Amino acid sequence: MEMPAPCNEIIGRKDSIVHKLKFAVPEALVIDNPDEVKGYECDALTAYTCPPLAVVLPTSTEDVAAVMRVCSTENVPVVPRGSGTSLAGGALPTADSVILGIAKMNRVLETDFDNRFIRVQAGRTNLSVTQEVEGEGFFYAPDPSSQLACAIAGNIAMNSGGAHCLKYGVTTNNLLGVRMVTVAGEIVDIGGGYLDAGGLDLLGVICGSEGQLGVVTEATLRILPKPEGARPVLFGFESCETAGACVADIIRAGVLPVAIEYMDRPCIRACEDFVGAGYPDVEALLIVEVEGSDAEIDMQLGLIKQVAAKHKPEVVRESSNSEESAKIWAGRKAAFGAMGRLADYICLDGTIPLSELPRVLTRITELSKKYDLKVANVFHAGDGNLHPLIMFDANSDDELARCEAMGADVLKLCVEVGGCLTGEHGIGIEKRDLMTCQYSENDLEAQMRVKDVFDPGWILNPAKVFPLDVSRSRRAA
Amino acid sequence: MEMPAPCNEIIGRKDSIVHKLKFAVPEALVIDNPDEVKGYECDALTAYTCPPLAVVLPTSTEDVAAVMRVCSTENVPVVPRGSGTSLAGGALPTADSVILGIAKMNRVLETDFDNRFIRVQAGRTNLSVTQEVEGEGFFYAPDPSSQLACAIAGNIAMNSGGAHCLKYGVTTNNLLGVRMVTVAGEIVDIGGGYLDAGGLDLLGVICGSEGQLGVVTEATLRILPKPEGARPVLFGFESCETAGACVADIIRAGVLPVAIEYMDRPCIRACEDFVGAGYPDVEALLIVEVEGSDAEIDMQLGLIKQVAAKHKPEVVRESSNSEESAKIWAGRKAAFGAMGRLADYICLDGTIPLSELPRVLTRITELSKKYDLKVANVFHAGDGNLHPLIMFDANSDDELARCEAMGADVLKLCVEVGGCLTGEHGIGIEKRDLMTCQYSENDLEAQMRVKDVFDPGWILNPAKVFPLDVSRSRRAA
Repeated sequence: MEMPAPCNEIIGRKDSIVHKLKFAVPEALVIDNPDEVKGYECDALTAYTCPPLAVVLPTSTEDVAAVMRVCSTENVPVVPRGSGTSLAGGALPTADSVILGIAKMNRVLETDFDNRFIRVQAGRTNLSVTQEVEGEGFFYAPDPSSQLACAIAGNIAMNSGGAHCLKYGVTTNNLLGVRMVTVAGEIVDIGGGYLDAGGLDLLGVICGSEGQLGVVTEATLRILPKPEGARPVLFGFESCETAGACVADIIRAGVLPVAIEYMDRPCIRACEDFVGAGYPDVEALLIVEVEGSDAEIDMQLGLIKQVAAKHKPEVVRESSNSEESAKIWAGRKAAFGAMGRLADYICLDGTIPLSELPRVLTRITELSKKYDLKVANVFHAGDGNLHPLIMFDANSDDELARCEAMGADVLKLCVEVGGCLTGEHGIGIEKRDLMTCQYSENDLEAQMRVKDVFDPGWILNPAKVFPLDVSRSRRAA
Repeated sequence: MEMPAPCNEIIGRKDSIVHKLKFAVPEALVIDNPDEVKGYECDALTAYTCPPLAVVLPTSTEDVAAVMRVCSTENVPVVPRGSGTSLAGGALPTADSVILGIAKMNRVLETDFDNRFIRVQAGRTNLSVTQEVEGEGFFYAPDPSSQLACAIAGNIAMNSGGAHCLKYGVTTNNLLGVRMVTVAGEIVDIGGGYLDAGGLDLLGVICGSEGQLGVVTEATLRILPKPEGARPVLFGFESCETAGACVADIIRAGVLPVAIEYMDRPCIRACEDFVGAGYPDVEALLIVEVEGSDAEIDMQLGLIKQVAAKHKPEVVRESSNSEESAKIWAGRKAAFGAMGRLADYICLDGTIPLSELPRVLTRITELSKKYDLKVANVFHAGDGNLHPLIMFDANSDDELARCEAMGADVLKLCVEVGGCLTGEHGIGIEKRDLMTCQYSENDLEAQMRVKDVFDPGWILNPAKVFPLDVSRSRRAA
């Protein structure tokens, strides 16, 4: 993966820039010691690292505005960072950039149960949003696997999803408003606690913009009443294709489970070794969960089991109590960690039409043989959001290169069958060079012109999303 | 309402412009005869009329592109039009503009039940989308009252809602992709049948942009499995405030009905006279509908009736069969027609925090007295989307002026209590001059800069949404 050449002119001004930052915000919030900035040299895409020029950890929107005013004036790139859990390199710095990390901004500002929303500082972690409202019977729906650690700011930047998004939608469907600092250091409010307002829906374009249009410091989030109960059922199949066909049939049957998760044998075994979730040893496993009262659950699961029966599952196991349900989910949520114990990996998140699932799974197996790399599949099957984990040895340059090449082939395949490059992780640096597979020159130009509006000098997270050669000319101009 | 002065220079070039349009598309698709263009002088906001320069009724995306190329080159304003059912004047022409009406483009292009979407030409009517898929057990969720007539193109332009959007969301939550013609006549595809793609979410900013960023010619729409059944229950109350408080409590209780509709006495009587829906004669009526199997419906309605009982309703009447349910909805869906038999009216759609409902209803009654104008209230109560109908006599200039002034006061009130100007009808010309109540100069500037990107010459529906003095300088520049 090519990294942009850092600007030596900016690096040469480091002392002066740090001095100005320390004048703009309390000195203790600015980190410039090389040992300490190293802690911010990568995010969860650990294959790529680069220490930033400096790090600022503001405690207020006003601090963020002050930092943006300094960086705008000084023409220094800014890389916004939540908790640094991006799997796509969204928070990877460049050597000439300032990391603007808002993890300290994690307060709850307002809860409104009558109108079903919560307003938080954007550094707050995803899970702690639900924890704040669950006492009153509410929850925040999007649930990335990293929800214990990941920040709402990063969820908004990447339009994050999660296992339960099949029913509840991804971040963009649960975000009502943001307070954002513009590149010039102005503070703007977009959207709010109530229905879509008049004028252009800038909230839509901010969500998923990967920190390239502004720095989100507060978020108003939809909270939903917790369902009465939920129950998962496991289906084990003798082939990946059969499991894929079963998923398509469940969706087609007109019942909407809250989640349909898929794991293949390598992944099942890794999870089993790691947390002992009690998964059966099969080629492919589906976790299908439905919600509601006991009567509703029985009715929905009845229909789902009937549909699944046509595909002759080897194992059908319905959870009989909440401990068992928790164990089933613990396995799935730990899948990335479990795989990480076995090997380095990159995790893709290409998304495809459900009807193409069997064909794409077969093709991924073929590519795995061609590149001689092991692949484990674990993904949100209900909405076609794949997560092939391609394993490699980080100490081998050759394996990383093969891994990148295979990843590119898988993502091209996703686009080819009518899908797209990313379902929830974002483009970051990981898929930057593949944007031209999905988008025409006109399409990319339209997107970049919108970035021009918000960030004319291209200082916000500039080396991400758009192909480097295209964005570089923008930054230079 | 001030209308922008038409550009006489453009009007003077009418013959040449019409000639070029007739060369660009089949001649029969261009209407320039003054008697015939008069048919397009207004939309459903009939208080304001102005015949356009010419009308083009294309039959393909390529036709639309050809028209846009002519109008761009000639610097002629273009007003896109679906079925012309806008209540906010979104399709009102100016004397120097070309109406681009896409009602002839109404074909179904693709249905994909496995992946739960349908792709249609954007001139197709809302209801006929559901009719196309209901045989397979699916439906398209957003259901504006005008759904028999209104086009998907207009639904997208205004981000339309409807009675059942409490559960299913508005257009933006059910729109997956569009094919759009840019102002320069390029054809672009944004989004598609699968999960959110990488790059900027331009679909979000297109939906609700009131025909100001491009001309949408095709749409990919999410279709949903039809629920097993649905059942409405009527609650009659002796005061509007009590009905309002009951709505807030139902939402607060953690059950999500598919619809909570509110009607006051003037509206109940008008509907009763018009369609004989069997409504009780009470001060305020709620129609609360839930969906699911019989068991689910019983359970949900049980909880709702328990909550409502605390507010001592005068009438509680549960529908006992599908004919009765249809009659209940026929009354509500005919409300605007029923009121139209009694008087001219303007229908606002300001949206407020649910907790403010009782206070806002009281204040509307006070304003009605102050301005000496009758008001009927019928609205989507569950999501706080008000629809006060202010009645006036169109033959009295004084009454129209008072009506506009009262409408402005009501909308200002909505913004004041934390709500917004429009929930689903859009800004159009109706609320154009009120945008500054809701948005700061910075906010409007950010929105207009995004319009600059898509439409540098401001020829697409230019006299709408943004305050005239602000947008005029943009068009001139």
